[in-house]
Amino acid sequence: MSLPEKIEVSADRKYPVYLGAALEDLGGYIHSLPDKVEQILVISHKKVADLYLERLMTGLGDYTVDLMIVPAGEEEKSLDRLSRLTTDALGFGADRKTLVIALGGGVIGDLAGFFASVYMRGIRLIQVPTTLLAQVDSSIGGKVAVNHPAGKNILGAFHPPVAVWTDFRTLDSLPWIEVENGLAESIKHALITDSDFFSFFETQADSIKRRDPVIWREMVARSASIKVRVVSQDEREQGIRRLLNLGHSFGHALETEMNYRGVTHGQGVSIGIVAAAFLANAKGLITLNEVERIKQVLRCYDLPTSISRQDPHALLQRMETDKKNQGGRKILILPQGIGNAVVSKECKDEEILDAWQKVILEDN
Amino acid sequence: MSLPEKIEVSADRKYPVYLGAALEDLGGYIHSLPDKVEQILVISHKKVADLYLERLMTGLGDYTVDLMIVPAGEEEKSLDRLSRLTTDALGFGADRKTLVIALGGGVIGDLAGFFASVYMRGIRLIQVPTTLLAQVDSSIGGKVAVNHPAGKNILGAFHPPVAVWTDFRTLDSLPWIEVENGLAESIKHALITDSDFFSFFETQADSIKRRDPVIWREMVARSASIKVRVVSQDEREQGIRRLLNLGHSFGHALETEMNYRGVTHGQGVSIGIVAAAFLANAKGLITLNEVERIKQVLRCYDLPTSISRQDPHALLQRMETDKKNQGGRKILILPQGIGNAVVSKECKDEEILDAWQKVILEDN
Repeated sequence: MSLPEKIEVSADRKYPVYLGAALEDLGGYIHSLPDKVEQILVISHKKVADLYLERLMTGLGDYTVDLMIVPAGEEEKSLDRLSRLTTDALGFGADRKTLVIALGGGVIGDLAGFFASVYMRGIRLIQVPTTLLAQVDSSIGGKVAVNHPAGKNILGAFHPPVAVWTDFRTLDSLPWIEVENGLAESIKHALITDSDFFSFFETQADSIKRRDPVIWREMVARSASIKVRVVSQDEREQGIRRLLNLGHSFGHALETEMNYRGVTHGQGVSIGIVAAAFLANAKGLITLNEVERIKQVLRCYDLPTSISRQDPHALLQRMETDKKNQGGRKILILPQGIGNAVVSKECKDEEILDAWQKVILEDN
Repeated sequence: MSLPEKIEVSADRKYPVYLGAALEDLGGYIHSLPDKVEQILVISHKKVADLYLERLMTGLGDYTVDLMIVPAGEEEKSLDRLSRLTTDALGFGADRKTLVIALGGGVIGDLAGFFASVYMRGIRLIQVPTTLLAQVDSSIGGKVAVNHPAGKNILGAFHPPVAVWTDFRTLDSLPWIEVENGLAESIKHALITDSDFFSFFETQADSIKRRDPVIWREMVARSASIKVRVVSQDEREQGIRRLLNLGHSFGHALETEMNYRGVTHGQGVSIGIVAAAFLANAKGLITLNEVERIKQVLRCYDLPTSISRQDPHALLQRMETDKKNQGGRKILILPQGIGNAVVSKECKDEEILDAWQKVILEDN
């Protein structure tokens, strides 16, 4: 197979993102780290570990490796799970020289990353993303967090990994619902920064849907590169990185309101992007024709553009605890045409309610 | 009153430590911060807030200030308390522009600091230490943490404050047992870096014990300056900062084994310093005469130099989860004469047991 492509995040601390690397080669990479690793904790889901741990272990034979299994589900991103991981890690004798490998998707990356960021005030982390969502988006940029009953990702940190190690082969067996989660973020990347990449999603739909490896490789690489470029400019989310939240204020509200059941993250983001697009249209930032193009692309990948039986006022209320809010004002990211986005500090509650109305189906 | 003395911590991010500042003037300082503060959360104990909140509010009239009261006790440095603070903060509408003021001693500084470090991935913090321990030591250097049932300060972060605001007047009414906690750290500072300051504790005992304000001011300023110097050189505890842990590996083991009851932090550190001194003597780093001088000084301030009815093997076991350990080896800080200390990576379990034996009284 071809050599991995290396792109570098140049934030506070530089770190590499390896695209198209092999799980089997990670051990060699860890051996080459300047500050010696004495022990490894792999944090993963059972299903994921069953699929990939053996390949990973090929290169890790020299190390003491302990596996910590986390049940599947967004609800595992909790302080309670953090506490259990801590108990287990202490039991394994993990210390400041221990390296954490987050082997999995977004939940594992966030949870294992937050664990690594606070265990003994911070130990090293390598992200090994095995889902499309994690490969194109969540494994890059150092954001880690757990949820709180009152809001998503409320407790967290910026904990840049030592490296991101992306093996495309883990995507082969990914269920379509997981693919959707990644596509939603990937289309979002295109929508906020790159109209040409947005067209790619319009023209390559067939190839993407039948998982053409060449097209997938291009899609992951382009999307990951956008993420790398944005977080390199603004790791701490003071400026441009905020644009990556397009669709997420609406989406998180929906996920929280529905208690993370019946709506995936990608579906929430997809509906959120459409709501944000309608709000942008009301503000004259985007034409109705462009809103329609956005809906079209999302639909084309089976991503939802509306939801039924939701109370817009309850959803608005959920947006009160959004981390971007400042001094009680809601800050939203809105698309400006296709390939651009802006931070809008002037979103009135009525406008947000109108946007929600436009994505909520009336059941008759 | 005289103007506060300003010393600067020059670590990753520079921040000032104001010694001899007035609680009433903090508001003016906050107004002068370049990045506007929109809301303030004061985290404190009820007793401390009753004493000092009014003075603090003198300068904070322009801000929305919410008070979050934490019950007294080391056991409040927990994930559970962190979760409750988060619920309350969300209820108060705290966002990324909110500033946390930690008003209290070491427990409040650690807990409020850890909360500030993870709430919405980190918000600003001002340490307002009201105990001797916090003023000479724990408020400076950015270390924050909560405990885990299996070990002290296991989950934490480096979260440097915007500023440390020290009002000496809060020490006037401090109970002696609290003074002891600070003296133990202060004497430790002298022991590891400054033999002249160590002599100060020998010669000024009377003045210190009757709380002579001039001598206390000198003691706090010298001790805080040592801490500032050390953390400026090594914020992340890769080198010299580790020396500040002298007495703490033993002390934490004792505190954890006794479940934080019947032994204060200062008492644990005091006994820990003596145990470390005996171990240093066994290694030829310090004379028995010097060990005796150390015991003498501690005793002179009513700090214990031994403890009864403890199982040295259980205490040794507790040291297994010490954060300084590497690859299963115990790393201890040992005094080298008076005014110097070293990191020892060659401490065998038998030597540590011997040291414990020397500070454990046999009851007959």
